[in-house]
Amino acid sequence: MSWDPRGAIGTKRAGKRVPDADLERLVHAYAAGAVGDGPMAAFLMACVIQGLDADETAAMTRAFVASGRTMTLGDLGRPVVDKHSTGGVGDAVSLVFAPLVAALGLACVKVSGRGLGHTGGTIDKLEAIPGFRVELDIASMRRQAADIGCVIASQTAQLVPADGVVYALRDATATVRSIPLIAASVMAKKLAIGSDLILLDVKAGSGAFMTDLTDAGELVAACLAIARGAHRATAAAITDMSQPLGTTIGNALEIGEAVEVLRGERAGRLRDLSVWLAARALARLTGIGFPAATERAVACLGNGTAIEAFRAMVVAQGGDPAVAETPWSVLASAPVQVPVVSDRDGFLTRTDAAGIGEAAAVLGAGRRHKGESIDPAVGIVLTPKVGDRIERGSPIGSVHARDQDRGRTTAAAILHALTIEAEAVEPPPLVYGWSEEVG
Amino acid sequence: MSWDPRGAIGTKRAGKRVPDADLERLVHAYAAGAVGDGPMAAFLMACVIQGLDADETAAMTRAFVASGRTMTLGDLGRPVVDKHSTGGVGDAVSLVFAPLVAALGLACVKVSGRGLGHTGGTIDKLEAIPGFRVELDIASMRRQAADIGCVIASQTAQLVPADGVVYALRDATATVRSIPLIAASVMAKKLAIGSDLILLDVKAGSGAFMTDLTDAGELVAACLAIARGAHRATAAAITDMSQPLGTTIGNALEIGEAVEVLRGERAGRLRDLSVWLAARALARLTGIGFPAATERAVACLGNGTAIEAFRAMVVAQGGDPAVAETPWSVLASAPVQVPVVSDRDGFLTRTDAAGIGEAAAVLGAGRRHKGESIDPAVGIVLTPKVGDRIERGSPIGSVHARDQDRGRTTAAAILHALTIEAEAVEPPPLVYGWSEEVG
Repeated sequence: MSWDPRGAIGTKRAGKRVPDADLERLVHAYAAGAVGDGPMAAFLMACVIQGLDADETAAMTRAFVASGRTMTLGDLGRPVVDKHSTGGVGDAVSLVFAPLVAALGLACVKVSGRGLGHTGGTIDKLEAIPGFRVELDIASMRRQAADIGCVIASQTAQLVPADGVVYALRDATATVRSIPLIAASVMAKKLAIGSDLILLDVKAGSGAFMTDLTDAGELVAACLAIARGAHRATAAAITDMSQPLGTTIGNALEIGEAVEVLRGERAGRLRDLSVWLAARALARLTGIGFPAATERAVACLGNGTAIEAFRAMVVAQGGDPAVAETPWSVLASAPVQVPVVSDRDGFLTRTDAAGIGEAAAVLGAGRRHKGESIDPAVGIVLTPKVGDRIERGSPIGSVHARDQDRGRTTAAAILHALTIEAEAVEPPPLVYGWSEEVG
Repeated sequence: MSWDPRGAIGTKRAGKRVPDADLERLVHAYAAGAVGDGPMAAFLMACVIQGLDADETAAMTRAFVASGRTMTLGDLGRPVVDKHSTGGVGDAVSLVFAPLVAALGLACVKVSGRGLGHTGGTIDKLEAIPGFRVELDIASMRRQAADIGCVIASQTAQLVPADGVVYALRDATATVRSIPLIAASVMAKKLAIGSDLILLDVKAGSGAFMTDLTDAGELVAACLAIARGAHRATAAAITDMSQPLGTTIGNALEIGEAVEVLRGERAGRLRDLSVWLAARALARLTGIGFPAATERAVACLGNGTAIEAFRAMVVAQGGDPAVAETPWSVLASAPVQVPVVSDRDGFLTRTDAAGIGEAAAVLGAGRRHKGESIDPAVGIVLTPKVGDRIERGSPIGSVHARDQDRGRTTAAAILHALTIEAEAVEPPPLVYGWSEEVG
C-alpha cells in the first residue's frame, strides 16, 4: 500500500492545518501519478474553501519548486529581474518592460505560460512575430540573458512540472480561485529561477482575475510571505485593470503597440506603467533614486536603446527583425477592419474590461478553453480611457476581424461595454500600491 | 465541447444552490465517463463542506436511481420490507431480520454492498456459508422473495450504478462524511427497489459511522425528506452502537450467532433489536398493534419458522443447509482460540466499539482497504455488555485467530478497549428513536 492521501485531505476538509511533509508528499505523489485526479481535486477544493495558512502555502510552493530543475542566473554580469503580471486586458507590459530593463543594463529573464482567458499570454503575443521561437532550453536562456539582457521563453516541463499539472487540474475543476494556491503557483515559477529581484504586477479591476483591491492585497501579502520564507528579494505593485491598459487587445496588435512604445512614438498608460515598473526595478537593483531611474527609463525609449534591445531579442529568438522598424510589414493583419463609432456624447465613466476582453476572445484573439488555437491577426483597438470626452459620431476604435459579421457584432459589444455619461470622472490611478520584501 | 461542469462546481464551492438539472447532468456525465474524477471529486468536496439542501439531495438521489434499472416488487403476494443498516460492530441484524419477517408472512428483499470497515458486510458474512451465492439477477430475486419471503443479494451494476461509482470516488477522496451524500446514497438504493416499506436502522455510537445522536438524527431527517419527495413509506430507527450489538464480531462467528438467535437458543441485544425491528415492520405493514406484532415475532424464533425461512434462503442461494442445524459443521473455524480474561474486578462502564471493530479488522475479519480479502474464520467473541459485572480472572470472551501471536495481541487490544470501574452504570438503551414517513 502506497501512501494514503485521505488523512491529509480529511484534515483540510475539516479546516485544520496539514503538516508540511504531507503537503509535499501529496504534490510529489500527484506529479508522479501515484495519487489520482480525484483525491488531488478533492484536496484542492478543500484548500479553496478552507484556506491555507502561510506555512502551508510555503510548503506547497517548495513542493512545486522541488518537482523540477532550477535555473541559477548569478553570473550573468547584470542584475537580473524576473517580472510577472497576474494578467489583464491589453496588458503588453512584459513586451515593453523586458527590452527596456535590458537597455537600462539589467537583465530580464521571463518564463511565461500561454494565455488562458481574454487574450493570449506574452508567449502567444510573441508568436505573432514570424519565426519567433519561444521554446528555449535553460542554457540558451542564460546565454541570451547575458548577451542581450532580455529573454522571454515559454514555460518548460523542466521547471516546476508539478505546478503545471496541478494548475491544469485546478482549471478543470473550478478550483482556481484560491489566493494561497495562486500565490504558490506564481511564486514557485519565480523561485525556480535565480534572479536578484522578483517583480510582481498584481492587477486589480474588472479586467483582472482579482476584481477588487482587497483580494489583490491579499495575494501580494501571500506572495511576499513566500518570498520572505525563501529569502528572495521581491517587490509587488498593485496596478489598475479597471479598463484595458493599452489601446489594443489582440496578439499582433499588441506587438505593434509595444513596438511603438519602445520606439518612443506612443504615450499612454501602457508606456507609463512599463516605465514605472522598469524604474522601480532599476532603483531597487542599483540603488539610484526612483526619480533618476524614471528619467533614465524614459530616455531609453527616446534614444533607440530600448527598441534595439527588443530587436536583438527578436533576432536571437529567430524572429523577423523588421518587426522592430515596420511591424505591419511582417505582422499578420485581419482582412476586415470595422470602425467603432460612438452613438453618444459624454464622458467615458466606466469600461467593462472583462466585456472587452471577452469580445476579443470571441473574435479569436484569446483562448476560452485550453488547447484552443489563437488567431494572431484579430483584435480590438479602443482609444478612449476612463475620464476622456467622447463625441457622438466620432471614431473611438476599430475591430480587426475575419469577416464583416463578426466585426460588426464585436463593435456593438464594445459600445455596450462602455458607460458614457454627462458628468466627467477622474481617471483611475495607474498604481494602487507598492510593497517590497528585502529577502 | 460537451457540457462544462465548472459552473455547477463553482456554485457549490461558493455555498450556493445548484439547480436540479445541473446535479442530474453531473451525476449522469460522471457515470458515463464524460466528466472525470477530478471535477467530480472537487464537486463532492464542495458538497461535504458547504452542504446540500433537501431539494439538492433529492435531485442527487433521483439521478442515482435514474442511472440504472429499477426493480418492481408489487405482485409478490406478500408485503415487502427493505431494511438497511448504516453499519456497526457485531451487527448481524439483517441475518436474523430477513428470515424472521419471512416467517411472519412478509417478504424482505435486501440488496447489500460488501463491507468496508470493521467487519464484512452482510454479503461477506453470508459468503462464510459454503456454496452460498450472492450474485442474483433481478428475476431470481423476485422469484425467491415470492417463494420463500427472504432474499439477500449483492449490489448489482444494474441497480443505481452511478451511486456505485460516486461512492468509490468518495471513498478514495475523503468525501464520505456528508449527511446529504450519505442519505442520497442510502435512499437511491432503496428507491430503486419497489417495496412497501423502507426500514432504516441508523446506528449511533462509538462503533458506528455516526458517533453522535445529533448526526444520526440529521441523517434520519435527510432520508425521510427524500422518502417524502418520492412518496415512499419509510421508517427509521436510531439504535445504539456504543458497544458491539451481538457477542461476536467476525463473519462465520456472526452467522453462528444469528443461527442461534433464529433457533430461539440465544437471548441478548442482537435478538432484541431484530425482534423490535421485525415487529415494527409487521405492525406497519399489517396494521396489527406493536405489542401483538412483538409477540408473533418472538413466537417465530421459538417455533422453528424463522430458522426454517433461513434454511430455505440458504438452500435457494446454493448454500449448505446444515448451517441451519449445526453451523460449526460447515463454517470455517480459526486454528487458534485465545481466551480473553479480565485482569480487573468491577463493572463494564464503557466499550470502545470502534477499537473492538478495528481489532477484528486487524485479525482479517474486515477490510481496511477496498478490494482486500476477508478471512471468514477469524473474529472476536466478547460476552459482557455495558452495565455487566466482571470478575478478575474470569473469561469474558475469546479471539479466533490464525496464530497465537495475533490471538494474544488482539486479546490485549480487547482488554484495552474495555473500561471497568467500581461503580455500576445503566446499560444504554437499545433504541433511541423511531420516525415514520407515510410516503
